[in-house]
Amino acid sequence: MDIKTYMQQLGRQARQAGREISKADSGRKNDALLKIAAAITEAGAELAGENRKDLEAGRANGMDAASLDRLELTPARIGAMVEGLKQVAALPDPVGEISNLGYRPSGIQVGQMRVPLGVIGIIYESRPNVTVDAAALCLKSGNACILRGGSESIHSNRAIAACIAKGLAAAGLPEQAVQVVETTDRAAVGELVRLQQYVDVIVPRGGKSLIERISAEATIPVIKHLDGICHVYIDGKADIDKAVAIALNAKTHRYGVCNAMETLLVAESIAPTVLPVLAEKYAEKGVELRGCLKTCSLVKQAVRASEEDWHTEYLAPILSIKIVADIDEAIDHINTYSSAHTEAIVTEDYTLARRFLREVDSSSVMVNASTRFADGFEYGLGAEIGISTDKLHARGPVGLHGLTSLKYVVLGDGHIRQ
Amino acid sequence: MDIKTYMQQLGRQARQAGREISKADSGRKNDALLKIAAAITEAGAELAGENRKDLEAGRANGMDAASLDRLELTPARIGAMVEGLKQVAALPDPVGEISNLGYRPSGIQVGQMRVPLGVIGIIYESRPNVTVDAAALCLKSGNACILRGGSESIHSNRAIAACIAKGLAAAGLPEQAVQVVETTDRAAVGELVRLQQYVDVIVPRGGKSLIERISAEATIPVIKHLDGICHVYIDGKADIDKAVAIALNAKTHRYGVCNAMETLLVAESIAPTVLPVLAEKYAEKGVELRGCLKTCSLVKQAVRASEEDWHTEYLAPILSIKIVADIDEAIDHINTYSSAHTEAIVTEDYTLARRFLREVDSSSVMVNASTRFADGFEYGLGAEIGISTDKLHARGPVGLHGLTSLKYVVLGDGHIRQ
Repeated sequence: MDIKTYMQQLGRQARQAGREISKADSGRKNDALLKIAAAITEAGAELAGENRKDLEAGRANGMDAASLDRLELTPARIGAMVEGLKQVAALPDPVGEISNLGYRPSGIQVGQMRVPLGVIGIIYESRPNVTVDAAALCLKSGNACILRGGSESIHSNRAIAACIAKGLAAAGLPEQAVQVVETTDRAAVGELVRLQQYVDVIVPRGGKSLIERISAEATIPVIKHLDGICHVYIDGKADIDKAVAIALNAKTHRYGVCNAMETLLVAESIAPTVLPVLAEKYAEKGVELRGCLKTCSLVKQAVRASEEDWHTEYLAPILSIKIVADIDEAIDHINTYSSAHTEAIVTEDYTLARRFLREVDSSSVMVNASTRFADGFEYGLGAEIGISTDKLHARGPVGLHGLTSLKYVVLGDGHIRQ
Repeated sequence: MDIKTYMQQLGRQARQAGREISKADSGRKNDALLKIAAAITEAGAELAGENRKDLEAGRANGMDAASLDRLELTPARIGAMVEGLKQVAALPDPVGEISNLGYRPSGIQVGQMRVPLGVIGIIYESRPNVTVDAAALCLKSGNACILRGGSESIHSNRAIAACIAKGLAAAGLPEQAVQVVETTDRAAVGELVRLQQYVDVIVPRGGKSLIERISAEATIPVIKHLDGICHVYIDGKADIDKAVAIALNAKTHRYGVCNAMETLLVAESIAPTVLPVLAEKYAEKGVELRGCLKTCSLVKQAVRASEEDWHTEYLAPILSIKIVADIDEAIDHINTYSSAHTEAIVTEDYTLARRFLREVDSSSVMVNASTRFADGFEYGLGAEIGISTDKLHARGPVGLHGLTSLKYVVLGDGHIRQ
């Protein structure tokens, strides 16, 4: 079978299974999630064995240490997958929830029912745990999914897929509700993102280049997260202790994550007080500082930042720092250079906090909290399939609700339009 | 200035004005809407004069009577535009509304704030009143807009645009929050739908071919409404009077509208009772009936329907009728042939009503009510910019909420991630 025919077949099967799964009640879906968890626990040794094949192939192909680490399914990671399934099972079922049902002057009742999107295509890189996480969220939200992981993890993914199929079957749900693309041929991705008839939305998870390529090729809507150029603005009325704690946490808690701060903005009036303290703490952590002219005159460790720096997501122990006149310049800088992921203000000023919340156009906007909180678990979504920097449909961390939409329901008693 | 440069300039101006308008408080936006209404009332004679130029050009170009009618700005239509502006001013302002703000275990508060999308591009055909309706909805929802009406109505649109600019200026808002494309060159549309940097979403309003062309060309998300192949299913447990009233209203209340019924499905058990009654009433109204084999044997007026009929949005006094075994066959037919606009069941059976609501995958699903209710005003949205048959972002009638998105707001007191 050629790739096109194969992908069409997956699509047709997913559409059919999606109709079944959209009708499944919460108890059955939760039962499936727990049975998948049991199947994974039982298959521990087998999963490790299949994963070893991927690791060996990776080493033979000269994969770097960081990639090998991401690829590895340690017992702790298998345990985390099982735990994740149980957590998703424990979340409330969003499907079928009716909101705002009220009577209209005509006598009809109108409300909105939360419904699955249908079929989700997920394209990701080498972490095999994404296979389980994504399947769990799609299943709970009543969607079928087609999962295309990195070719480096094909053995691991196939073994995980077998556990998922086992759990679905044991719960009496169609196995084809979760399908893993069985070929490593790259053409499969090109086909998947054009299966308009069968796939309702594509969620790419991975680096910026993967996501840009998929967005350019897709004829299906894409829920995407490009990059996280996050800002913290320390206002003139900031509490110094809070400012230092937040600016340090936002940059140094973890470097390679999308919600880490990349640029620090500091009000001119407070810069001489706060920047030298911060610079010393950053120096202890080995963070390289790149500043505007004024920053460099206050902070001896800083080198001059270029225009390029304001546009850069370092994902590394590097920070760009700009001294601004006031909140207007800060908001203007953010709305110009930010990737609309997450921004925070540190201030004790009520009016400025209120302005920042309203005027900063990003998916998460914070007052006196670290940008590192921008995360599905921290927000109480339970789990996330990604963080959307788009404005339409889902913005910010995307959990179960982001995989659903709202249809109108109308109840009448023989009502006709006059 | 060439078209590309011109459209880039409109885009840049719109982005700038969008930032201003997104911050404007509700009072100022309402004031602008009322001042636009006053400007239109004052300019009545001038609007009629400019409209006459379009009508004369239309007649000279051999425009048909229906198109000329759509183009005409009668005093009643000008009055309706003014009334529409007042109604939008009276709607609650969705911008800035914060929902679900609650404490998380970490101590931060997390909620979602409703925010404008930014800049909306609206592409429509000859009705000049769309210029005012669309501008009002965009303005109230805090968005800037770029409006591209049909070239046939260019004089009318320019005159309306002048009134809008006057109202905006009088309320102290940037005139460029609403810009009408001043050229009739078709290339302007191609540029508009690719202004990714400056335009956040495109809303096409018009016939299916316009919308398909724009969707194919656009590199910006499109909120679209393709067609309305709406179904009514008369179940075996239907109340005959309600069934007849609804099936008649859904087809004959207006023919050329997207929420009119195009296909009637009837349960086999009730068909001999209900179809002959209905057929007579349809005959009185001059509705042509095209039926399946079983329908034709019950209804002498019916001719045989072809496969093509089940796929057709007639927008005319034609109805296709199919007799089905039960609700399963009805839902299966709907989920296969429907354009996912609006479907209704007529039944007194509680369990079947509940199933229909859950399992029919359309933007509006109704029990014992006419499909003609699928409309922003009837649903209480106040006004609509269109009816979306997409699943992502906005589904069904799109009012002010559909022109906004939700960003996360996080409130802390120096909180950092552990």
